[in-house]
Amino acid sequence: MEAMYAKRFENVRSEMNKRKIDALVVTDPFSIWYLSGIWNDPHERMYVLLIEKKSVEFFVNKLFNIPKNEFNEHWFSDTDDYVAMLSEELGKSDACTVGIDKTWSARFLIPLTEKCPKLKFVLGSDCVDNSRACKDDQEIAFMKEASRINDICIQRGIDFVRSGMTEKKVADYIDAQFKIEGAESPSFETIVSFGANAADPHHSPDETVVKEGDCVLIDMGCKKNRYCSDMTRTVFFKKAPEEYTKIHDLVRTANERAESLIKPGIPICEIDKAARDVISEAGYGEFFTHRLGHFIGQTDHEQGDVSSANKNLTKEGMIFSVEPGVYLPGKFGVRIEDLVLVTKDGCEVLNHVDKHWKVIG
Amino acid sequence: MEAMYAKRFENVRSEMNKRKIDALVVTDPFSIWYLSGIWNDPHERMYVLLIEKKSVEFFVNKLFNIPKNEFNEHWFSDTDDYVAMLSEELGKSDACTVGIDKTWSARFLIPLTEKCPKLKFVLGSDCVDNSRACKDDQEIAFMKEASRINDICIQRGIDFVRSGMTEKKVADYIDAQFKIEGAESPSFETIVSFGANAADPHHSPDETVVKEGDCVLIDMGCKKNRYCSDMTRTVFFKKAPEEYTKIHDLVRTANERAESLIKPGIPICEIDKAARDVISEAGYGEFFTHRLGHFIGQTDHEQGDVSSANKNLTKEGMIFSVEPGVYLPGKFGVRIEDLVLVTKDGCEVLNHVDKHWKVIG
Repeated sequence: MEAMYAKRFENVRSEMNKRKIDALVVTDPFSIWYLSGIWNDPHERMYVLLIEKKSVEFFVNKLFNIPKNEFNEHWFSDTDDYVAMLSEELGKSDACTVGIDKTWSARFLIPLTEKCPKLKFVLGSDCVDNSRACKDDQEIAFMKEASRINDICIQRGIDFVRSGMTEKKVADYIDAQFKIEGAESPSFETIVSFGANAADPHHSPDETVVKEGDCVLIDMGCKKNRYCSDMTRTVFFKKAPEEYTKIHDLVRTANERAESLIKPGIPICEIDKAARDVISEAGYGEFFTHRLGHFIGQTDHEQGDVSSANKNLTKEGMIFSVEPGVYLPGKFGVRIEDLVLVTKDGCEVLNHVDKHWKVIG
Repeated sequence: MEAMYAKRFENVRSEMNKRKIDALVVTDPFSIWYLSGIWNDPHERMYVLLIEKKSVEFFVNKLFNIPKNEFNEHWFSDTDDYVAMLSEELGKSDACTVGIDKTWSARFLIPLTEKCPKLKFVLGSDCVDNSRACKDDQEIAFMKEASRINDICIQRGIDFVRSGMTEKKVADYIDAQFKIEGAESPSFETIVSFGANAADPHHSPDETVVKEGDCVLIDMGCKKNRYCSDMTRTVFFKKAPEEYTKIHDLVRTANERAESLIKPGIPICEIDKAARDVISEAGYGEFFTHRLGHFIGQTDHEQGDVSSANKNLTKEGMIFSVEPGVYLPGKFGVRIEDLVLVTKDGCEVLNHVDKHWKVIG
């Protein structure tokens, strides 16, 4: 096995030992790719890498195009009882506690628990996710490249906005820039929100036309080498109402305060708190309606919140978003988001586009 | 409640009674849309429509943009214990058996089973899926429209293929035609496979250039009004090797034989068998490696196989694919696919593009 994959398996097995998990059902295709370099989208079909104490078993549908590998393969077709094949393998081992991938669906999990009444099933995907959360050198290089492209394209998107334009037109333009710069795809639906639409953090770009005095919120990311970027900037069109620029300054301060804290060994909830305190103290706490950020890697949202609920400590190699926002329903919204890499003794912000408010158009 | 939705709920509750399911956890966003007209993509967050005997409870994250509705809403934020909220609601009712949506992920299901040790959890999504499988008039109209566009665009795709072209270029052209014809998007990644690539039923279009004598397999579908189309045709570029045209005729015969059988009340496995027998009797059975078809609606693959494993009977309003194929690894592949609607006394094939082999380019 290649050294990079061997190291990743070593991390996973160490987490399994810590949690007394005897066998781990890995089903997230991104986790399987992470551990093997094999990419396959199983759609609704079963696809399992079963990590046992002494072996790794790979359950794959005959329809999947799986390259040669070092695992023990168990091939099945749509009409086989593939869940029974998995339960038989678990029965042969001396496993008592079986870790289950958080993304595995009930269509497989419920029949498996019915077939294995003596086994204890627990959530087990942290074993892989904790390893995935700390990026190795290759992953860091890929994510810096994705953010470099994102920096270029957001700037072009901001410069592109003109009177009469719709959100959709700006979003399409940004997606085209991603292609030009060699990204594989957006990493999520590009968000462009004008004015009151920005008060919905998950607004989809539509036919709304930009108006003078609107905020223009752009939240975007791309994939390059399978890894994602993600950033948000908010600017103003033609003029900047003072009431809103003050809120913009506040949100930027919250973003910067949080980022200034980040180094290894900090409780992740403290980062959320640092940003939230800035906004709350100014009286806007109730309008910052979401967690401060999320982990990211092969997908735009990976396991790991940057929120008050996450008491874990930061570790070198972690990459997550820092994205405070204030949303005034029916009126206005602002969010400022960077990706941040935890380094040996501090952090590196992966986005370099100016975050101060400015007037465009 | 609007009559259309009332009818859908009536279907679901009748299925719940039949299966002695006291409460149903509906989590598939497409099912929730089907029952309410509310669309929301919860990504990795919890999103549950809980159908109980006397009420419908709706568990939604405060970040979701949910319009006014008639259900009892339970709002939560990322840092709340939302699974506990759900288990408390289940505890208040006299539910013993709880049906779980097949798509619900272990991240919620495992904690819920831990919090509710006295409840029995079973797969319950058939209650909704059996209703979704039989399309009502509006759905049939939408799916005919999506197939009408698909017919137009596949013909343009076939006519577009010229010497020197790559699979990717043809696929991109087809996707552009979908846009021109007013489709919302492809319903899955458009498949264009040349020559030996067609032997992989799930091949992704790449930089392979078409060669004289190649088969050209195009499997495509689009979404219109949220509903999907899906069809496959296989033709030959510049010349048609006799060995392969014979197989093409065989696969077309299998497709037509299966379609000729379809009317209400037929065991679905018999439709698969009819096509498979044609191919097996000619000695190619081992090269027809997948089920004959799948159900389709809001997503390209919905619950319901057309395979030897499905002993259920066809019903009026069902729409599914009929797509026999023969795949000779390293050499060649052919698949011919239509969507078929089960009518009162027979069936209607929704695709009208010629399925005989022909030479193009």
